[in-house]
Parts: sequence; structure tokens; C-alpha cells
Amino acid sequence: MTNSQLTLIQIDNYGPWTVTPEPRREMDLQTLQSRLFADLAQFVGSRDGYVFFTRFDNMVAITNGLDKDDHQLLQESIGNRYPVTISLGTGTDASPVEALEAATAGLQRAGSAQDGDRREVLAGEYLSESRRTPSDVQIAHFDVNDATGKYTDRLNEFDSFIQIEQGYAALMQYLREEYGGLSFFVGGDNIISICPAMDEADYRDAISHVEAEAGVELKVGVGIAENPHVAGMDAKHALEECRHHGTDVEMELPTEDVGITTD
Amino acid sequence: MTNSQLTLIQIDNYGPWTVTPEPRREMDLQTLQSRLFADLAQFVGSRDGYVFFTRFDNMVAITNGLDKDDHQLLQESIGNRYPVTISLGTGTDASPVEALEAATAGLQRAGSAQDGDRREVLAGEYLSESRRTPSDVQIAHFDVNDATGKYTDRLNEFDSFIQIEQGYAALMQYLREEYGGLSFFVGGDNIISICPAMDEADYRDAISHVEAEAGVELKVGVGIAENPHVAGMDAKHALEECRHHGTDVEMELPTEDVGITTD
Amino acid sequence: MTNSQLTLIQIDNYGPWTVTPEPRREMDLQTLQSRLFADLAQFVGSRDGYVFFTRFDNMVAITNGLDKDDHQLLQESIGNRYPVTISLGTGTDASPVEALEAATAGLQRAGSAQDGDRREVLAGEYLSESRRTPSDVQIAHFDVNDATGKYTDRLNEFDSFIQIEQGYAALMQYLREEYGGLSFFVGGDNIISICPAMDEADYRDAISHVEAEAGVELKVGVGIAENPHVAGMDAKHALEECRHHGTDVEMELPTEDVGITTD
Amino acid sequence: MTNSQLTLIQIDNYGPWTVTPEPRREMDLQTLQSRLFADLAQFVGSRDGYVFFTRFDNMVAITNGLDKDDHQLLQESIGNRYPVTISLGTGTDASPVEALEAATAGLQRAGSAQDGDRREVLAGEYLSESRRTPSDVQIAHFDVNDATGKYTDRLNEFDSFIQIEQGYAALMQYLREEYGGLSFFVGGDNIISICPAMDEADYRDAISHVEAEAGVELKVGVGIAENPHVAGMDAKHALEECRHHGTDVEMELPTEDVGITTD
Repeated sequence: MTNSQLTLIQIDNYGPWTVTPEPRREMDLQTLQSRLFADLAQFVGSRDGYVFFTRFDNMVAITNGLDKDDHQLLQESIGNRYPVTISLGTGTDASPVEALEAATAGLQRAGSAQDGDRREVLAGEYLSESRRTPSDVQIAHFDVNDATGKYTDRLNEFDSFIQIEQGYAALMQYLREEYGGLSFFVGGDNIISICPAMDEADYRDAISHVEAEAGVELKVGVGIAENPHVAGMDAKHALEECRHHGTDVEMELPTEDVGITTD
Repeated sequence: MTNSQLTLIQIDNYGPWTVTPEPRREMDLQTLQSRLFADLAQFVGSRDGYVFFTRFDNMVAITNGLDKDDHQLLQESIGNRYPVTISLGTGTDASPVEALEAATAGLQRAGSAQDGDRREVLAGEYLSESRRTPSDVQIAHFDVNDATGKYTDRLNEFDSFIQIEQGYAALMQYLREEYGGLSFFVGGDNIISICPAMDEADYRDAISHVEAEAGVELKVGVGIAENPHVAGMDAKHALEECRHHGTDVEMELPTEDVGITTD
Repeated sequence: MTNSQLTLIQIDNYGPWTVTPEPRREMDLQTLQSRLFADLAQFVGSRDGYVFFTRFDNMVAITNGLDKDDHQLLQESIGNRYPVTISLGTGTDASPVEALEAATAGLQRAGSAQDGDRREVLAGEYLSESRRTPSDVQIAHFDVNDATGKYTDRLNEFDSFIQIEQGYAALMQYLREEYGGLSFFVGGDNIISICPAMDEADYRDAISHVEAEAGVELKVGVGIAENPHVAGMDAKHALEECRHHGTDVEMELPTEDVGITTD
Repeated sequence: MTNSQLTLIQIDNYGPWTVTPEPRREMDLQTLQSRLFADLAQFVGSRDGYVFFTRFDNMVAITNGLDKDDHQLLQESIGNRYPVTISLGTGTDASPVEALEAATAGLQRAGSAQDGDRREVLAGEYLSESRRTPSDVQIAHFDVNDATGKYTDRLNEFDSFIQIEQGYAALMQYLREEYGGLSFFVGGDNIISICPAMDEADYRDAISHVEAEAGVELKVGVGIAENPHVAGMDAKHALEECRHHGTDVEMELPTEDVGITTD
């Protein structure tokens, strides 16, 4: 069984800020958003978590291994360096979407995302060290078969992008509805999913579904570990196995030595 | 008539680099990608262009006002500061997708995106100053009606995101197929489209289509100008008009004083 | 008694890289250097250490609380995101300069800073948890009395800068020679020193020396703790006390609850 | 004769902000300062100017080629992305220090650097295109002879740094007092000076002075051009000539084709 700790990162009152006193230059907003995401990726990532840009004003992270002090420090540090502040809601559950539901609810209870008085909320629960196990996190790393040959080197970039987007849209909805998994486009032809305890057949099923619905052929490597980085790195290695062996699904068993957090 | 100058920004041989000699930490890749995009946004944006993250390894920019020297300097500066290099293909056309087709073709002719020997290509044509007009660029800025109230404050963040994504998927395909327009999700509930000469009825049609297909209600502000920044800022102001008047489509006429590039 | 863990961060073979194949744009080098420093400041700082830019190609950090895994991860992450790599040498000693001497020697033994084959060295020893105490780190935070009124608002910026620099030059040499302390200019009119176990009289002596030699009047707040962040924050609060009471030296005693790493 | 346009970049009311409501984490301040500098280096540098970090809360730039619109855009963009704002004062003169004197005076007249109500001042005059000449900017790039062999590979890093600092302190004061030149440490063993029209004998004299006073042996390459980037790149090439020929001073004549802004 998995046990995901999900964190919702929400920029406080961001929409109104972007047009106050009048609309701000779009490329400055894009810069602000993407650099904020990069800083979160470094903070969370160097503690072996994963964060996804999602909508940029709301970002989703899987943070097994980060406690309340870590979240508080992150919030303080962003507040010291950006013209905006962030609220952080956290939840844990065997089902990734349920964990996110709890994480989101913590912020929603505190007020609206566009409530000017609701700032720097820190809500929710964290997985204590004693509850952590070597199979808490299941990460699936998908990519598109021969995306460069079929799309990038052949179509104009927007049409390539449409293909990838359609594959992503089909996968994100299917894993969400069937399994409560959360899938994120991470650039290129790559999608990373936070999954509950799924097996090889489940992944074959998902790949078939995406091919039938969107005509996009995926393969996937899966890793299981106590934290997102190790699970994700195992997933990457499994995906390399797919490439070498021409297979569609490769899963790596959880590493035994769970005490090592960097590889 | 519009006349868009589109630039395709492609990281050279990026996929292989991310797994050489072995897969790199995902959060380092996310950091690299989003900071590269931020740097492009600053360079292009401070010269009144717009750049979109698209797939991050391939990014699309509208660069009316940036000449070959600007592109060359951008390429050199990125090469000086990142462990990867970029190739830049540029094209111009009344139809945004045709301009991107030309931009993409310039790079494809030079070799594959994953060809280790093809580095720092600079290909294509640039709009000379004498050919520029005050209506070269049409930017449409869409957002979702009451996204905070309907989604963000009510659903878990992933389900909110699915709604926004579905609206985006419907719009991106429709504008691409019907008009040759290029639409980019820019965070929150915002989509920015590079459009050919479309009128109010065309935009109403697109909004109706998205509502019918994805159940997502959009509104749009449109700006027309000699460069993306001014057109985009007019579009933002027009969108504010939609908010104040409860309208679905507002278009701003091209500004007369086209010589002013900052507002 | 203090026990400082000092880390020397050295960009590998940087000088030759800056002029290969020909000299690179200076502002790209400045961007690269200052962003690399910022990333180190975030990584080390969010683990309660301090890093100083020093010469930018060689940076000095006080890293009590960061172990070998942390250093290795930092090295890997920088290598994934920059066109240059870093070597890290670490040393510990009651005397800050002796700790740095050991840290430096670890890299020097591995080869020259401009040896093209010497990359990503990780050398030296780290303070084990069991050896750490609540008074390992003594941080002194100096600033110039009324720098804004006497210099910034009155002289041209370069002449203000010369005054601050002269004060810094006098202090850095005096603390180095008399006490083995390491002083770093951190912007504005602020100097932060990593000190051995010094007392109030020692600090008065240093301040008198700087006034006599450079004509610059300093005051100082001093903090003592198990890590640089807590010691440094205590020093800042002590400096605020100087401001409120018009005193020259204020020292805060080590905090008793050494288990808390963020405040 | 040279004609330097100098810009003073001052963070508004920065000192008080760093301790409000209580002192902020030092490494967050260091990150903020160095990233702000990096952004300025990219903006100014990609327009062929140079900016120096100086005291970080006050930075000095040579901006020949940047007009009022450029300065205004820079100010707006920083205000959109940082928790602090900047004021910009500009001045022009044959003497660099006089130009900076004028630049500084423009801000001082508007109020104190620590006046909470004085924000985003934009003051001073800009060199019009018609007044620009191919010899407006003289840049001298100094480095220390064999710094790696004599210092970096032999001494501990702080003692190496002291040597470089002493050389810098001697040079900065001498060029300031004798010639009105402005010298900035730019990392490693490099110093870049904005000089008035000085000749080879003047540079020999400065080098001799530094060796006599601080015991540090310098060499220098000098470039003269219509903007800082071209002058600075010529200076770098001249410094390479010093390395190859074992000479102390090399000067490059102004490039004839002044219309080319990137090389």
C-alpha cells in the first residue's frame, strides 16, 4: 500500500495582484511564476520530494520526508524573496487524490484563494517518521514512443505539442478516475504520475486506453520507494529498460536500504 | 491583416542529455527548464515579444520587433550560462501556424532535434522594420469565468486543473484547426492565443465551441498592435472590460502611436 | 570553545573556461557567478549554514549541520544545472582560519584549481552529530554607524563604497591576524565574521582598531549557537539592541534549546 | 575624450526592509541581492552595458547606449518581480567619477536612500544618439599575475582573498584619486575599471603603484569603443595579448565599425 503526502502550494491572492493597480507585463508574470516554481523544485527536490507546476498559481507537490518545519521554512523563505506569499496545505492518504483532497480542504477552510486577508496559511498533517515505509511512494514515468521521429522532427512545433497534450489529457483523466492517480506533464514527451499501489496490468490498461482514445503510444517505468526521488529515479531507470528491451511497462521493486536518501 | 514573426526555441539534443551518463535528478531538470524559460521570457519580453513554455524543450515565441542580432545574442548568452545550447528557427506569415511551420522547417532541415552534432542553428527570416505595420500582431487573452469560485475554492486542485486543461485542450485545437491560431496556457485560468485577423464573431464562435465541448465558460480580451507586448497589454485591458461589463468578448483597436514600445 | 566546519567551494578550472574558445561576455559571467552563489546560499542557508561570495570562483561557507551527503547532493545538483562544476573541501577546527586551512588543503592536494582533469573533488571531514555543541558557532554582525547619513546620502556612490571598503579591509585583516576570524562583506554597510571564542573586550578592541586605522566607526552584534543561522540571527537581534541603546557591542548568550533549527 | 554614462541603481529603503518586522534570514537576503544583480546584469549586459555589484544595495552601471525608456522598463520589470523597488539616477561626463557624482546627486535630491516615501525615482540625463562617439568608453581589465600559482593553490582561501583585496583596495583608490576612474572587483583575480582617456604610461604608473603599496603584481588590457561591451571585450582580448607576450599593458584601438553591437 502506498501512503502519499501531498502538498498544495497556492500563491495568495495572486489573480488580483497580477492586475493591481493595472495589468502587469505578461513576461514579468511568466518569469515570476517559473522562477518561483524553480525555487520550490530546488527546496523540495533537494529533500527528495517532487513538485509539479500544474497551474503555476497552484502547484502540487509530493513531499514524503518533509515535515512541518520544512514547510514553514519554505514559506518563510519565499516570503522573504518574492512580492507574493504562499499558503501550504498538506494531506496524507493511500490514495493520492484523497491526500490532495485533504491538502486542498485545509486551505479552502481558511478562506478563498482570492481573499486578500488570507495569507501564509500552513495547514494539514505530515507523515511522522514512524509511519513511513519503503513502499509509500509509487512513481510512474511515462514517455511517448519515438516522439522525436514521429512528431518533433516532422510536424510544426504546435502540432507536435497538440499530440503530446492529447496523450496527456487522456492519461491524466483516466488515471484520476480509475485509480485516483495524479499525472503531470513535465516537459518534452514526459509525464510523471503519483500513483496508488498499481500493478503491471493496470499500467498496460492505462497505456491501451490512451492509445485507443488519443492515438498516442506511451511506455512507462515505475518505481516504488519511501520517497519521491528514489521512486522517481527507479522509474527513470525502469523506463531506460523499456527503451533497451522494447517493452511497454517495467517496474522496479522497492529498494531495501531505505535509509539512504541520495543515490 | 496580421503578420506574425514566430520563433521556435529548441534545446539541442536535450532528451539524450537528460539521461547521460545516467538519468539526472528530475527536480534539477525541472529547475533548469523553468529557469531557461524565465531567462527567455526576460530577454524576449523586455524587447516586447512573448514566449511560451510549450513543452519546455521546445518553446514558441512571437518575436515581432526582434531581429537576427537579437536572436544571435540570445543564443550566445544562453550558451554561456547553461549546460545546454539552443537552436532558433524563425518564420513570418499572416497565419501564425504557417509562420511556425516555416520556423520549425528551418531547424528540421538542419538535422534532428536529437542529433548530437546539430548545435546552435540560427535559421529563418526576420520581419524588416520597413515591412512592419500597426496591426501585425493580434493577441487574445482568455480566462475562465469565476474559476476561483467554481473550481479553486471548491474542488481539489487536481480536479480544478482537469477542468482548466479540458477548456484549454478544446480551445487550442479549435483555434488551430479553424483559424491557424496558436493558444498557450500561461497559468491560473489564463490562455493567450496568437491569432490571425479574427473578428468578434469568430471569438464568440470559439467560446461557444469550448463551452459545448468541454463545459468551460471563457471570456476574451483582444488587442492588435505592432508588437506582442502592446497587443497583449491591450488584450489584458479588454479582458478587464469584460469583467466590469459582464461581456464575453472585448476588442481594442490598434493603438495609433505605434512608435512607443513601453507603456 | 567554538568548533567551526568550513567549506571551500571552488569552481573547477573556471579561469580557463571563461576565455575558451574566446573571452565570454562579461555580463554573462557575472550572471553565472551571482546565480551560482544564490543557489548555494539557498541550499546551505535552508540547512542553517552561511555561505559568502568571497571571490565568486572560490566561495567560503560555514556549514555546521551539513554532512557529507548534503555536500555530495549540492555538488551533483550544481553539476546538473550549470556549465561548470564545483569542488568542495571541508575542515573543522576551533579556529575558523585553521578550519579553512584544512578545507583548502583538501582541494590543493587533489590538484590545481586550474587543472582541467581535477573535477568535483569532495574532500575533508565533517562534524559528526555527537561532537556538536550549543556554542560551536560564533557569528559577529558588524555595521557602520549611520552609513546612510554620513556616506550614502552625501557622497557619490563610489566614494561611499571606498569608505565601506576601507573599513572592511581593516577589519578583515585585523580579525584574521589577531584571532583567526574570517570576515566577509555582505552588502550595504554590513560585515559578517566567523569568529573563534571572542569576548566583548576583543570586539571593542577590533572596533577601536578599525576606527583608528580607517576612520570608520563600527558597531557589532554577536550570537553564539550550534549553527550559523541561529548564531547569525542572534547577532542580528543583538545589533538591533546596539541601535536601540546606542551601544557598540552586544552579545547574545547561546540559546538553550539547541534542538530547534528554525525560529 | 571619453564620455561615460553612469547609472546608480539604489534599492529603495532597503536597510529598514531587511529588519522589518524583524531581521530576515541572511541567506535569503544574499539570494535576493545576488539575483537582483544577475537580472540587472542580463538586462544591461544584453544592451551592451556593464553593471557592477558594488555594495549590492547600491550598484553602479555604465550604460552608454541605454536611453530613458530602457531605464524605465528595467525599473518597472524589477518592481513586478521583487519585494523591493529600485531608483535609478543617471549622469554623463568625460570623467567617470563626475558622471557618477551627477547620477548620485539626482537620487540624493529626491530624498534619502532610507526615506520610505521615496520610491522608484528616475532621474538624470542620457547621452543622445547624436552625441555618441566611437571612443566614449574606455574599459581596463586588470588581473593578478599568476594568482592561481601564487595564491589559490598555495594559501588558504581567505589569505588568497586578502591578497586580492589588498591589490583591489590600492588600485581602486589610486585610479579614483589620480584619474577619476572607477574600479570594481568582478570575481577571481579580476578588476574592471571605467576610465577616462588614459594612456599606456598612466596604466604602467597605476600598476607600479599597486605593486609598491600592496605587493600585488597586475597586468591590464584596455579597450576603447562606443559602448562598454565592445570596449570590455577588446580589453579582454588585450589582456590575452598580455598573457601571450608576457607584457603588462596592452591597449586596443577603438573599432572602426561602431554600428555593430554584438561580436
